[in-house]
Amino acid sequence: MALNPLTLEKTFRSLLEGKKYQSLKDILVTMEPADVAGIFEELDDERVLLLFRLLPKETAAETFAELEPERQELLIRGFSDRELHELVNELYVDDAADLVEEMPANVVKRILAQADPQMRREINEILRYPENSAGSIMTTEYVSLRPAMTVAEAIARIRTTGVDKETIYTCYVTEGRKLLGTVSVKDLLLCADDAKPVSEIMDENVISVSTLTDQEEVAQMLSKYNFLALPVVDTDARMVGIVTFDDAMDVLVEETTEDIEKMAGMLPSEKTYLRSSAWDLFKHRIPWLMLLMISATFTGMIITGFEDALAAQVVLTAFIPMLMDTGGNSGSQASVTIIRALSLGELELGDLPRVVWKEIRTAVLCGLALALICFGKILLVDRLLLGNSNITLLTAFVVCFTMAVTVLIAKIVGCTLPMGAKKLGFDPAVMASPFITTIVDALSLLVYFGIARALLPI
Amino acid sequence: MALNPLTLEKTFRSLLEGKKYQSLKDILVTMEPADVAGIFEELDDERVLLLFRLLPKETAAETFAELEPERQELLIRGFSDRELHELVNELYVDDAADLVEEMPANVVKRILAQADPQMRREINEILRYPENSAGSIMTTEYVSLRPAMTVAEAIARIRTTGVDKETIYTCYVTEGRKLLGTVSVKDLLLCADDAKPVSEIMDENVISVSTLTDQEEVAQMLSKYNFLALPVVDTDARMVGIVTFDDAMDVLVEETTEDIEKMAGMLPSEKTYLRSSAWDLFKHRIPWLMLLMISATFTGMIITGFEDALAAQVVLTAFIPMLMDTGGNSGSQASVTIIRALSLGELELGDLPRVVWKEIRTAVLCGLALALICFGKILLVDRLLLGNSNITLLTAFVVCFTMAVTVLIAKIVGCTLPMGAKKLGFDPAVMASPFITTIVDALSLLVYFGIARALLPI
Repeated sequence: MALNPLTLEKTFRSLLEGKKYQSLKDILVTMEPADVAGIFEELDDERVLLLFRLLPKETAAETFAELEPERQELLIRGFSDRELHELVNELYVDDAADLVEEMPANVVKRILAQADPQMRREINEILRYPENSAGSIMTTEYVSLRPAMTVAEAIARIRTTGVDKETIYTCYVTEGRKLLGTVSVKDLLLCADDAKPVSEIMDENVISVSTLTDQEEVAQMLSKYNFLALPVVDTDARMVGIVTFDDAMDVLVEETTEDIEKMAGMLPSEKTYLRSSAWDLFKHRIPWLMLLMISATFTGMIITGFEDALAAQVVLTAFIPMLMDTGGNSGSQASVTIIRALSLGELELGDLPRVVWKEIRTAVLCGLALALICFGKILLVDRLLLGNSNITLLTAFVVCFTMAVTVLIAKIVGCTLPMGAKKLGFDPAVMASPFITTIVDALSLLVYFGIARALLPI
Repeated sequence: MALNPLTLEKTFRSLLEGKKYQSLKDILVTMEPADVAGIFEELDDERVLLLFRLLPKETAAETFAELEPERQELLIRGFSDRELHELVNELYVDDAADLVEEMPANVVKRILAQADPQMRREINEILRYPENSAGSIMTTEYVSLRPAMTVAEAIARIRTTGVDKETIYTCYVTEGRKLLGTVSVKDLLLCADDAKPVSEIMDENVISVSTLTDQEEVAQMLSKYNFLALPVVDTDARMVGIVTFDDAMDVLVEETTEDIEKMAGMLPSEKTYLRSSAWDLFKHRIPWLMLLMISATFTGMIITGFEDALAAQVVLTAFIPMLMDTGGNSGSQASVTIIRALSLGELELGDLPRVVWKEIRTAVLCGLALALICFGKILLVDRLLLGNSNITLLTAFVVCFTMAVTVLIAKIVGCTLPMGAKKLGFDPAVMASPFITTIVDALSLLVYFGIARALLPI
């Protein structure tokens, strides 16, 4: 069962106060690195260093890799050179590269000084690649086999070199660093003939990504093909590393959170909510709020332009919020659906005509249903029940007709803007609810007053 | 590199027309099941059955499992009993159970008739569990070892029984079906002493889930611990199956899409966008649109109640959209952030006071910044540039003061409603933008008119 870090935290605190180090060691050895890291995040600074030193050597590096950068920096500052040396060379290369990226310059200097030459070279190799590329999240520690090796030799090689590799289960058959094929440990183990060369059982139809492929695409490929790892090749088709499924899962979660934040009109943040200060939240939220507030000048101008109409038919004002909200909601339903489908790769840009046609039909259905119910509601609730005698049949008709047109506009804007953004190379996610709401607001007011002017005595 | 199904589709069509079956076979053998399935979705019905029969036996079942239910049904209806028998027993049990769940009754009858008795028993076992539980997504095909086996015996057992298992890389050490520990193939292969009993190298600190654990929780645990699979145990702690990482990845993506759909005021759908008809989209979108439209009666009532105020100060109307939109955007920023943090497990219900306090401070910062800029904008743009002489300093102050208060209300409502929903056992995701917008609209109008009445000559 999963451990609850909050209850365990208390146990740890009291054991630490009682200096019961052996008991602490006994507990720590039974725990998963992710759970230990969860507790470390909750404890005071001095206690964390003490506890870290009690961790069994095998899980210390993994636990370290699971910590937030602030905790990592704190621990490194407390480490002796010997401790740092041991830790750094025990980390997987991709975790070490992440660490170097996150730490301030003086800490990085100490880390690289303590890294073995091979480790240092591989860290630097990964750091060369642009952020969010396959190269930047890959690890260079994989099992490579030669095509002429027999199955028995391959298994023997895995047994001798596997201990430092992030995954041993998919092995890569290379010659002169060129990737020829893949072979899984399952294939090797289940192969009845130990003397068969690897080249005969390997799968030559290798799916690989380039070092510059976007990490989100890599993650989606791993998820689509159900692979444990994907090989990363450079521009000369030479194998340089692998991306493993666990990193892909993290990327999927991270990128989705970013999309969701953008859709809600926020700049994406890398910090978790509880670790973000009010100032951080402010900085991520204010740009869109400010932009959208200022662009609301247009809606204001439209209303001011029709001030005389509103003065003549004050009852029209009461329906503005309903029309605007329905338009906004209809638009964001469409945009959010399209943005998600684009980011899951379910939609291509070429599908635009099909999408628009589908949204138009949906909008007609939604618009008719809403207009009908709204007509009934206005006459029964607003006029009869609430006794608003200013509402005539014609007013109700103007409102409901506007409603249907607004829904249609909103759905069309909601589906075309994200696809247009993608076409122009922008992120479709920023074309979500807040932005679309502002546009739909302005359009629906124009429609509203236009129809009112035409039909009502204004 | 990934294949583009749309370009390949043409090649397939022309090869099929030219009856070049050997070439088709040669291409199919090089392709990943997920890519073959992608092409099958695009081809006409008769062609799919023909192509399916050309697939190599090993990948036919995997390709079948990747298809949409409609295609699966079509294929099954075209299969002879012998073909169906072969396919069903080649499927992984979890995929077979999914299939049985999706097919109409008469197809299910044929499937179960063709399943081997062992397969039928295991399918029925999985189907017993509630939808979205660990039991319903697990597979019963895993490698189990006995604690007394030596490393060599364990490897031998994997070699003889592994071929039908969904993963062989994590093996489960059981005695009388009780789960004692796990051992990875990596541990077995890297163990220097072949004669060591499995009980000495197994990890006894097993993290497992119950058959009734929610699938989203299972997926998050797999992602947190970077496991290849998680064991599923029944209420008597007996091992009944495993959930593998690839299914967990699918669950993560699915559940996130559901959350996003709910946040945008839609009922979640299982179909992809292009497969949904306009009628499907209508059914998923209209309930919230209707509910929110009707609840806008309140905003209408508030405006009607202040009709005299608006008639006296028509200029106030022009700022209603800006105030409402800013409130809606502020509220959904908070709610969406909180909903995502809750669903990633970054927030607990106990964090509510911290959350509210953080949102209040953020709201004060955002509110002040917006009010200040808005004040300048109203005086410079609306009054001077656009020449709206009805705007006084006092009007500008009323609008900006309302703005600041609205942002504060919106952020508080936006963070408390999702957490309140979770507390009451509802899904926090339905408490997102559309719902919060409606509440914030009503509150902000009340504040607006309240302040206006107090300060302006109405």
